[in-house]
This record gives sequence, C-alpha cells and structure tokens, in this order.
Amino acid sequence: MAVPDFKDYKPLSLDSVAKRLATYPGVQERLGGKPESWTVREVGDGNLNFVYIVTGPDGSLCAKQALPYVRLVGESWPLPLSRSFYEHAALVRQDKANGSVPEIFNYDGPQALIVMENLSPHVIWRKALINREQHDVAAKMVGEFAAECHFRTSDLALSAETKKAEIAMFAGNTALCKITEDLVFTDPYYDHPMNSWTSPELDETVRAVQGDPQWKAAVQELKFIFLTRTEAMLHGDLHTGSIMVHKNEDGTEDIRIIDPEFAFYGPMGFDCGALIGNLLLNLFAQDGYPGRACVYQDWLLEQIENFCHAYASRFSELWRTERTGDAYARSLFEDQNHTDASEIALTNFLHRVEMDSLGFAGAKMTRRIIGLAGVADLQGIADPATRAACERRALALARMMVVERVELGSLGRTLEHAERILKDVK
Amino acid sequence: MAVPDFKDYKPLSLDSVAKRLATYPGVQERLGGKPESWTVREVGDGNLNFVYIVTGPDGSLCAKQALPYVRLVGESWPLPLSRSFYEHAALVRQDKANGSVPEIFNYDGPQALIVMENLSPHVIWRKALINREQHDVAAKMVGEFAAECHFRTSDLALSAETKKAEIAMFAGNTALCKITEDLVFTDPYYDHPMNSWTSPELDETVRAVQGDPQWKAAVQELKFIFLTRTEAMLHGDLHTGSIMVHKNEDGTEDIRIIDPEFAFYGPMGFDCGALIGNLLLNLFAQDGYPGRACVYQDWLLEQIENFCHAYASRFSELWRTERTGDAYARSLFEDQNHTDASEIALTNFLHRVEMDSLGFAGAKMTRRIIGLAGVADLQGIADPATRAACERRALALARMMVVERVELGSLGRTLEHAERILKDVK
Repeated sequence: MAVPDFKDYKPLSLDSVAKRLATYPGVQERLGGKPESWTVREVGDGNLNFVYIVTGPDGSLCAKQALPYVRLVGESWPLPLSRSFYEHAALVRQDKANGSVPEIFNYDGPQALIVMENLSPHVIWRKALINREQHDVAAKMVGEFAAECHFRTSDLALSAETKKAEIAMFAGNTALCKITEDLVFTDPYYDHPMNSWTSPELDETVRAVQGDPQWKAAVQELKFIFLTRTEAMLHGDLHTGSIMVHKNEDGTEDIRIIDPEFAFYGPMGFDCGALIGNLLLNLFAQDGYPGRACVYQDWLLEQIENFCHAYASRFSELWRTERTGDAYARSLFEDQNHTDASEIALTNFLHRVEMDSLGFAGAKMTRRIIGLAGVADLQGIADPATRAACERRALALARMMVVERVELGSLGRTLEHAERILKDVK
Repeated sequence: MAVPDFKDYKPLSLDSVAKRLATYPGVQERLGGKPESWTVREVGDGNLNFVYIVTGPDGSLCAKQALPYVRLVGESWPLPLSRSFYEHAALVRQDKANGSVPEIFNYDGPQALIVMENLSPHVIWRKALINREQHDVAAKMVGEFAAECHFRTSDLALSAETKKAEIAMFAGNTALCKITEDLVFTDPYYDHPMNSWTSPELDETVRAVQGDPQWKAAVQELKFIFLTRTEAMLHGDLHTGSIMVHKNEDGTEDIRIIDPEFAFYGPMGFDCGALIGNLLLNLFAQDGYPGRACVYQDWLLEQIENFCHAYASRFSELWRTERTGDAYARSLFEDQNHTDASEIALTNFLHRVEMDSLGFAGAKMTRRIIGLAGVADLQGIADPATRAACERRALALARMMVVERVELGSLGRTLEHAERILKDVK
C-alpha cells in the first residue's frame, strides 16, 4: 500500500463530519438514526490533529483527521497529511501483533481520516495518574503490547526481505521522526526559541543542562541510535497520554494504546524509555500535589517494574516460541540442542534494550521539562517553587539515566536512585 | 531513480558485445575503428556476473552485465538483475564521496549493464598479496575511501530526510544482503550442505566451531547488527578481491575500489571488518608459501594498522569539518564552544566502529575458511596439512575477535595476538 495523494483532501468541520461519515460503509448502521440527528464533538487534546466523537441513537465512534500543519502551532508549522497513512499502517500491525488498539471501522486515505472505535468511558492514563487513580494492570498490559509489537515486527520474527520492505515503507514518515529528533534530542540542549519551562525558578538548572558537555554528548549518542537502529516498528510516542484506561465494574481493566502516527522502524528501547520516563515524571510530580504522596509513589515505582518485567517476560516467551525470523535462527540454537546459548543471547539482548530504555527515558524526561510541550503532571503543580523543585529532582535522575546508564546497569538500580532522591526531600 | 523493469533484458555474448556497445554514446570515439575490429574478452573471475574487456585501436573499456542467476552456481540459484542498479547507484555515490572508483561511461539500466573504465594494467590486490608484492599506499587509500563513503552517506553529513530516502532505496537490495546474511553469519555455524573447507584435516576444527555456543551467540549478535544498523551506505563486499592496485613507473600507486553490488545501509564496521579480516587471512596464509614469510607478515601487520589509522584519521577530519547532518549537530557542540565534548563523542564513536570491525573481521575470516567460497590466499597452499595449520591459526584469532572483542578492546591488542599466534609456530 502506498501513501495516497491528497489532492482531493478537505478538512472536516463540526458541520460536515456527520454527512461525510454517513457515506462510509457500516457507519449509519453503527450509529442508527439519521446523520442529521447525530451529535458531533471535537475532542482533540493532542497537539497535531482534529478528533471528532460522533454519537447517534445506537452508538458512537471516533473520527481522527490529520491537518496539513501542527494544530498546536498553526499553519506556520506544516506537517504532511501522510502521517495518517502511517498511523493507519501502524494500527493494523499493532492490532495483528497485540490487539490492544482501537478497532478501525473505516480508513479514508485521501482524506487522511481514520474512523475507529470510540473508547468510552475510558480516560487518558496520564490524567488518571495525576488524580492518583490506580489501574493495576495498565503497566503490565503496555509492557506486553510493546514486547509483542516489537518482537513481531523485528528480524526475530520476520524474514529480512519482509522487514526491509517495512523499513522502506515507514522511512517515508520522516516529518514525524524529525519532530522527535528536534524536540527530544536537540532543542532542549541549546538556547532554542521553542524551549519553555514552567518558571524562572528553573532558569539556572536549564543553563546547567545546556552547559553540560557529557550530558549533551550522551544525548547525541542516543539520537544517533534513534536515527540508525531499525530494530522494530515502534509506536514512536508511547507516553502515558497515548494510553487509555478504564476499570470495568467487575474490576477488570480495559487498556488501549492509541495515536501511533509517530510509528517508524527504530530502537526498541525508545518505546520502553518513553513509558518509563513519563511514569517517572509523574512520580516526581506527585510531591507537588496536596496530600501524602508516598503511598502512590510506591505504587508508581511498582508499575515501572511491572512494565519492564512484563516486557521482558513476554519478549522471552516469544523468543522461545515464535522466533521464525532471520536473526538468531533456531537452526543454530534449539535445533542443535544449544538452548543454553539461545538463553544467553536472549539475556544479552534484553539487557541491551534495558540500557537503551534508561537512556531514552532520561532524554524524554528532560525534554518534557525544558523543551516544547511540557506535561500536565508537572504543569498542574500550582506553586512555582514547588514545581521547580520537583522538576530539578526529575532532572537529577534523568542525567544519571542518560550519562551513566551503563554504570547504573539496571532499571532496579535506577529506581533505587529515584527512591533516594524522593526521600532526600522528606 | 527507480529500479528498471528488465522485460527487454538480453544477456550479451562474446559475439554481441561489440555491436551493443557501439550503440552507446561515446563508445566508438573512445575505442576507435569499427566495432567489427574490436576484440572482446570475457574476464569475470567473480562469482556473480559477466565482465567483458573490449579493446579497439584507440582504447579499451570494461562492460559488466548482471545475470539473472549466480554465475558460480548456475540457473538453480536465481539472483535479481536489480543488483546492477544498486551497483551503479553505489558507484555514483562512492565517486562523489571519494573518487577511487572506476569511471562510468554508460549505464544501461534495463540491460543491467555498466560500461566503465578498463583498469589496466591493474591487478586484484588479493593476487598481489599472495605474490608478496608491496603496494604501500593501498591500505591507506582504502581506509580513506571507507571513511569518506561512510561519513558522507551517514547522518553525520546528511539530513535525516535525505538519509531515510537513501535507506528506502537501498532496502530493495535484499537478495544481495541475504547472501551475506546466509554465507557469512549463518551457514558456517551448522552443518549446511554448501559449506566447504579445503581438507579433511580441518574436520575436527569445523565441528568445534559449530559446537561452540559462545561463538555462535556472538556471531548472531553481529548478524543482528548487520540486519538493523543503517549507519551508512556500505560497499558491502570490501575484501582484497574488490580492490585493484597498480604501481606507476614513478612509484606512485593507483588504487581503485570495484564491485559494490552488495551496497546497502548497514554498520560502518562491516566494511572495515571485511578488509581487516581478509588481510589477516593473507597474513596467516603466508606461512604456507615457500620462502621466509616473516618480513612480508610484518609489512602486512603494518598495512592493517595503516588502514585503521587512515580510516580514523580521515573520519576525524570530516567530523571536524563536514559535520552538516542531523546527528551530533554542531549547534550543540562547536557553536557553543564545546569542542571538547565533540572530541569525546568522536572518540567514543570511533571506538564503537573499531569494536564492530573486529567482530565482523572475525566473522569474515571464519566464513572464508569453513563456508562456501574460500579465498585463493589459503586455497593456493599446496600441502593439506600446512594449509589446515594456517587455517586453524586464523580461526583461533577469529574466535577471539568475535567472542572477546570488547575485552580485546583495540585493533592494536588484536594484532599483538596475531603476532603471538604466528610466533608460536616458528
């Protein structure tokens, strides 16, 4: 499937959504009633697109349309409509690999429009975390999601030929990758006009980051890994704002991963790092909110461990049972009774992904504190001095994770440092 | 430029070459006389293609045409004609990056045919090395060639967008990559029917290699690096048989690098390792030929150092003067007077390439001893026992380079071990 041309593209508006959607197969049956009776709400709280929730007497759905520019900034920052093509391609692959994505009902390529399941009454996990709600299986589910998507799109599962065709296809999603390259790995480390932080209390810290040669060199090494390692199809933006959570009445949870328009072939650790980094940001932000934070912080630390454990555990299962690709061929290991060697290779493989994850997590944390587009976790802290203190603690850990990740050697040790930093202020 | 379709492709024969070539612009002027008077020789001694040397009264040229199968094996092993497209694309880029490639006169894409400069009286470097001839600048020139081609096709020189388009283009050269994946990284490590070694004297050693779990796991790690790291456009087959050497009467040397049909985006260390590994194979083979080997072996050790030094030295120059790409942006380093950090980053970068090179060199050596397609350096040793002894010494070093490359830590230490292994037999 090739990227569509967009010559007939027309952005929808609140008035035109129902009429357009009614032309797609199955939509009228799903919503019931006449299109004129449907209610349409625009709910896009992301930075890039328009998202409409359309409700009829029998049901609802979600329609996401890309704009030819960045919504947050406006027409002065153009962004190609092709990102909708890549988002759809990623959703199809993630659905096949793991299933925890919204169901797609219709895809109108030339209109850069995806019509999908309306996740309701789900909430964005980031908001739930800020509210100290506990969704106990979310971290585990996301860990399994990442492991399955990574493994099944990698050379461990695919032939080199198939994987290279996938790389070539996703190589077109350069504009979205470029956003990450700039906002995560570059702009925060020098005096870039788009950087922003939440108060002058942090000015000195920002200067210290930007004047730290080791930090910059280590982040550039991570950027090079981001630019060059085509290990698996990544979600590309796997933070807590890309995860929808809901607790059913029977106590079970429904966890869905959304918004993969940043998908591309990259290093597995980047997705893992995005989630770890955003959970750590929430951890440090908790001290800025009223009430005792420590119980929730303990829970958060446990969730980070759960995520990593679920990732490693599911990845290991797939390594042992679905290793049909051209890398680490079974013909050299299991088929020759060298299962031990295969297990050693697996351990080394996961350790490398873990080290990458720590580095990327640190880079993500830093970016959310001093670059463009902060996170509500920290922005929501009312008192500037308190907020800056939380941010400085997060940055202290971020630096260790970026610069000393190999010496740290494990997520466990990293979390011990996080606990120590939290305790030092109590 | 896209891969041509080959629906009108016709393989040339000795009889049809002159007539076809006469239709291309400039060929008649270059060769002089009438096409009927031209002499045509088929000289392809590679494993894949037909190569014709066409000579007229005023000059000569070389015409290389791909076949739809592997020449060495026959029609039972199909191989796509598109490799000629990738070879041409690589030659154009290498010419731009460094210039030490044959001049291209005509490219007939649909006929999978490249008409180029006839390098005469150049000889294949491998043959010169077997004959103990000394071309003192070859190693240095090839080091500079590799450094310039790598740097200038990498994220250090190109924008991410440009580089991703290049990755996508070369991702189509899967069939040639697959040959490397199989013959270098996979087949030698289990009982594959295409493996071959030069005498039963080596049977026990081969069994030991194939039964060595650490060796296999380390080689699979290298294969994963080969499959996933799109660092630069590689030559892809940079052994001593892909290098033409000639000493001019005034003592200067003309060194050319040929046959880049294996070109793709991969890890820089793979090209470096190919050259180092093949020079080391010649080093160990020298003990199998009459006359005192040690002087030439000392010269060879020096050439390996020269290659690596030239690579690092030229790469460093380009790092300091041509770093215009999206990786390690100058805006974060030199522009902020953090040249020290840039130098630290360079040192780390080159160290990583060196470690990769050692591993890939070891893999290449092993492959040439126990896999399909050996090298004349070893095959030319008359006595089977002597030959096997040389091969065992080469394999002893190869294992260290693959399994213990991080502990070895440098090329210098590796060459010390090579010297020790050579001395132990004297």
